[in-house]
Amino acid sequence: MPRITHLPKRLLLGRALRSDRLAETLLPKRIALPVFASDPLSSVAYAPGEVLLVLSVAGVSAYHFSPWIAVAVVVLMFTVVASYRQNVRAYPSGGGDYEVANTNLGRRAGLTVASALLVDYVLTVAVSISSGVENLGSAVPFIVQNKTAVAVVIIVLLTLMNLRGVRESGKLFAIPTYCFVVGVFGMILWGVIRGAVLGDEMRAPTADFEIDAEHAGGLTGFALAFLLLRAFSSGCAALTGVEAISNGVPAFRKPKSKNAANTLAVMGLIAVTMFCGVILLALATDVKMAENPATDLIINGEPAGSGYHQNPVISQVAAAVFGDGTLPFVFLAAATALVLFLAANTAYNGFPLLGSILAQDRYLPRQLHTRGDRLAFSNGIVVLAGAAAILVVVYEADSTRLIQLYIVGVFVSFTLSQIGMVRHWNRHLASETDTGARRRMHRSRVINTFGAFCTGLVLVVVLVTKFSHGAWVSLLGMLLFYGVMTAIRRHYDLVAEELAADDPDEKRVKPSRVHSIVLVSKTHKPTLRALAYARLMRSDTLEALTISVDAQETAQLRREWEEAGIDVPLKILDSPYREITRPVIEYVKRLRTENPRDVVSVFIPEYVVGRWYEQLLHNQSALRLKGRLLYTPGVMVTSVPWQLESSELARKRARKRAEWDAPGSVRRGPLPGAAGRKKSERGK
Amino acid sequence: MPRITHLPKRLLLGRALRSDRLAETLLPKRIALPVFASDPLSSVAYAPGEVLLVLSVAGVSAYHFSPWIAVAVVVLMFTVVASYRQNVRAYPSGGGDYEVANTNLGRRAGLTVASALLVDYVLTVAVSISSGVENLGSAVPFIVQNKTAVAVVIIVLLTLMNLRGVRESGKLFAIPTYCFVVGVFGMILWGVIRGAVLGDEMRAPTADFEIDAEHAGGLTGFALAFLLLRAFSSGCAALTGVEAISNGVPAFRKPKSKNAANTLAVMGLIAVTMFCGVILLALATDVKMAENPATDLIINGEPAGSGYHQNPVISQVAAAVFGDGTLPFVFLAAATALVLFLAANTAYNGFPLLGSILAQDRYLPRQLHTRGDRLAFSNGIVVLAGAAAILVVVYEADSTRLIQLYIVGVFVSFTLSQIGMVRHWNRHLASETDTGARRRMHRSRVINTFGAFCTGLVLVVVLVTKFSHGAWVSLLGMLLFYGVMTAIRRHYDLVAEELAADDPDEKRVKPSRVHSIVLVSKTHKPTLRALAYARLMRSDTLEALTISVDAQETAQLRREWEEAGIDVPLKILDSPYREITRPVIEYVKRLRTENPRDVVSVFIPEYVVGRWYEQLLHNQSALRLKGRLLYTPGVMVTSVPWQLESSELARKRARKRAEWDAPGSVRRGPLPGAAGRKKSERGK
Repeated sequence: MPRITHLPKRLLLGRALRSDRLAETLLPKRIALPVFASDPLSSVAYAPGEVLLVLSVAGVSAYHFSPWIAVAVVVLMFTVVASYRQNVRAYPSGGGDYEVANTNLGRRAGLTVASALLVDYVLTVAVSISSGVENLGSAVPFIVQNKTAVAVVIIVLLTLMNLRGVRESGKLFAIPTYCFVVGVFGMILWGVIRGAVLGDEMRAPTADFEIDAEHAGGLTGFALAFLLLRAFSSGCAALTGVEAISNGVPAFRKPKSKNAANTLAVMGLIAVTMFCGVILLALATDVKMAENPATDLIINGEPAGSGYHQNPVISQVAAAVFGDGTLPFVFLAAATALVLFLAANTAYNGFPLLGSILAQDRYLPRQLHTRGDRLAFSNGIVVLAGAAAILVVVYEADSTRLIQLYIVGVFVSFTLSQIGMVRHWNRHLASETDTGARRRMHRSRVINTFGAFCTGLVLVVVLVTKFSHGAWVSLLGMLLFYGVMTAIRRHYDLVAEELAADDPDEKRVKPSRVHSIVLVSKTHKPTLRALAYARLMRSDTLEALTISVDAQETAQLRREWEEAGIDVPLKILDSPYREITRPVIEYVKRLRTENPRDVVSVFIPEYVVGRWYEQLLHNQSALRLKGRLLYTPGVMVTSVPWQLESSELARKRARKRAEWDAPGSVRRGPLPGAAGRKKSERGK
Repeated sequence: MPRITHLPKRLLLGRALRSDRLAETLLPKRIALPVFASDPLSSVAYAPGEVLLVLSVAGVSAYHFSPWIAVAVVVLMFTVVASYRQNVRAYPSGGGDYEVANTNLGRRAGLTVASALLVDYVLTVAVSISSGVENLGSAVPFIVQNKTAVAVVIIVLLTLMNLRGVRESGKLFAIPTYCFVVGVFGMILWGVIRGAVLGDEMRAPTADFEIDAEHAGGLTGFALAFLLLRAFSSGCAALTGVEAISNGVPAFRKPKSKNAANTLAVMGLIAVTMFCGVILLALATDVKMAENPATDLIINGEPAGSGYHQNPVISQVAAAVFGDGTLPFVFLAAATALVLFLAANTAYNGFPLLGSILAQDRYLPRQLHTRGDRLAFSNGIVVLAGAAAILVVVYEADSTRLIQLYIVGVFVSFTLSQIGMVRHWNRHLASETDTGARRRMHRSRVINTFGAFCTGLVLVVVLVTKFSHGAWVSLLGMLLFYGVMTAIRRHYDLVAEELAADDPDEKRVKPSRVHSIVLVSKTHKPTLRALAYARLMRSDTLEALTISVDAQETAQLRREWEEAGIDVPLKILDSPYREITRPVIEYVKRLRTENPRDVVSVFIPEYVVGRWYEQLLHNQSALRLKGRLLYTPGVMVTSVPWQLESSELARKRARKRAEWDAPGSVRRGPLPGAAGRKKSERGK
């Protein structure tokens, strides 16, 4: 990002903060809301349409069920928000659902939640970008005609931006999110004014179309109930991202939990208002959506055909309220697309963060555990982007088909998290004696129990209604993550067991002496430095070792050795096949066989270079030798580096890399108890 | 190979020789001949045809020039053989053309020869395999219909065989080569008997075809001369591989030079006899070859069309002499194909060997210098096979088009080598006083001068007549090799200059004390071993260092440290961002700043694992830390390995790898002065 938007960003936000001032960057609520709400609010862009789509299977007449489904979604939203307000208060550390499930329900539940969340991050990217492209496409037809390609390009751009290290900025999030909210509210308000006050007739672009329903006569009984449940499941897409705030409590200003809980409530309120408003306006303007528009949407008596692109409901409503192609219409389409891309970007921050937490618990390679580590971050980003791109290509950037996969993971983590919270309160109630506190706990437990019940019910509904529509893909993904992480953890556990220092014999047989060997090929500076360093170590014996691959060169080395008056004996091993590794290994092994209690210390002068291809030209023999020596017991290998002039390049690169800012630091907040970057030291 | 042909090979050759008995495997002449002659003899399979092809441009009547061209080739062959007999006597070390040019004409000439030889090896593979496929295809039409694919498959098979480590065997070479020689001589003899004695009329399959010549009226003057020169250039393909023996002198039994020189003479004689025999029989049986058979070959008044495959001249003659599809015909086709594949295989041995010689002279990465080193060998094989495969695909395995590229490189090295020999004799004549020796030298100089003149002339002819037909590709390839090798050498020279220990100040400012740091994360076995080893080294100060990324874990470590009664002080650095590298680097830098003359020694416990994916799960932080520490001056880094149980796997793999036999060792012969594998040791 620095290069792309450096100047506007600087103008807008002032100089980028160094991370040692992170402690000062706590978020006020008005900034925290857009930072965390871009994901849940953006789902208003697709969730209402999905409800209508599913209902259309039973014909347009089934649309009149949509307000009832909206009511059900609103009730669920309030339930989930109320539940997470309890989470936020009980777990202000930002561990989120994974921490709650892990602490209260055990490792398996925690890992299940983690797998669900990882799958969810991938889907957030795929769904948000596909939907964003569709919204953008409602204003610019070219985009929707090349949907998959555009979506992949946007994924690549987001990936590059994040790999370069775009520092997340609260204010940068605020503008598009507020634009989107203002746009949608403006649309709803203007729609209500035009419809109810001015009495205008507003007609969506698809108002005159008809739907060739699979069940034109309408459905009854079980089939109808099933369809309504499926529509409800789709509507639940509006709830995705609600849990984000529970990961971000540490980023809030004090009182952190209270502010986070209130932000959650405000976010829920805005989300349901927008959701209901869009659905009602869609009904009022006669929007027609079909699951398979090519065959089921009838335009002037003919099926729409494969050339027809179905615009998202929000853009159809905007066209009806503001007029197609007008300035407010384009503004809203742009704001919608932007907020959806921001929602995708949150997954780019969340995925590596969750990865680092899982690495701390040894479910992922340990080196990923550094918070904001560039390499760990890059690996996470690439995995996320790759998986999302595959989904986008396979599902042709069709948000409707991708959403079928989406909601499973969300509700798995909702449900397990809420069950965990019930356990949490049970445990605390067992020890708490203060009646006021007990009353609050009882109340919280009731809320979480209800939340667990509702989200669990929805999970079952989603699984039943969506399994064959694509939910199985998510489950497979979760299973894959779960399996890999379990295997990694098992490996680490086995190694830890192998390494535990519980063998008393181990400590008794101590090595007695060190025999040091300095590998020498010429009497140049690196060799002299290695000799000087080795001499400082005062091992019991010290000798220089050279492998004679060329009699002349060896003779010259011997001559130079004598001339320079080096007081370390030079041992020469002949190697007719010009091998280096084998003679050294054999020599070391013989030393060890002769004196089994001795340790051999091998000093290898190493060149430090700055360019990758220089690396190919140096150190390869040393590296190979080192690799083989590691398998020889009782040996330690010391690299004595010599920095060539070109290594300055690499040093500069490394410095630049160290100054890299991990994206997403704003939403994570400063670390508890850490006063910025200052490291306190304690000697023992 | 062990797996593929282990049993038949064992039955045929007895138990494979361990390389420590290499000294006993010197080649008698009857085995040396086939080992070195498969390449030059196999060119009889394509060279005569190429002569006819080119002549056909001026119509069938031009074929009567072919005996004269054959005579010119024979004269050239004797000249080259006579010249190389001098090389073999003067340079019995096996360095070949590269050594001769490098020693006598300087580095640039040497490098030019090396580049030419490298290009030539690639072309030997491409041409031999393409021609082999064509010969095989004369018996099995399916093969010639899928020429490119079959050729690539054979390249892949040869590559895999050589990568696995097929031990070259003289006897294995002998059988197909002798079969081929016997087959061709049998064919010539039987042809002469049938034609001259029995008076049979032998008709080649293409005898009744006509040629629609570009210049049906025949050519005159300059144009004819040019065409004849071009035909001669193509015929010179028969000379490729003659220089092979000069690389192989050390493999001969004593008297090495004499035996090699005589083998060379025998080989030359066999080659020219076969070459002339095939051309004469081709004329006698009315073989018709055209450069573009699809349009220029007229069958029953119609052009042959793109579906027509022109069989090699040797198989057409065999069909005429023995009858198409008869047993001797199939036998000869198989023997020809086999000897051509053997010829390709010699390039697989020669290319890495030349690479190791160039690496010794620092034109290629130094690690390639080990003779028969598996990794170096593999890299060479893969480069060779990749380049050959590209050529085969680009030129559609068409040996005629590939031969246009072939001869340039051969004659570049012939010419430079002969010029070098002239210089060699001049130099020796300047100091030699013995008249007998002087006379022999004068004689040799005359031969080499004539050789240089002839090969130089041919080089000019080849360049002029073939440049636009494809020779420019070879020149480009040579230029590329030359450029890369020059750049590598320059880099090594610059580094050597930078490292030369000629700075007197350098030696005066000596480091005074060592401050040792053992990196610790837990009190498990690897840590305890690292501590024990570090203590043995008796540095001036010793402390253990841990990075606190988790307060609880650190507290536990501190507790265990005290309980275990470890007498090394434990220093704890806080790292709120869970970084490992940065705090360590900063700490080390501070130590260095406080005591600039001190050296810091960092001990890192390292896990040794057996599977590549385990490597991903361990040591990554250590590796990264090590990488960064190398850029910090005044630091040495010691790895204290701990072999995990799984490392046993890797040790077994390494042992297997060490027992690998480099292909081509037979033709290289044992190393001078090396009594097998036994390494003598000399202490100083």
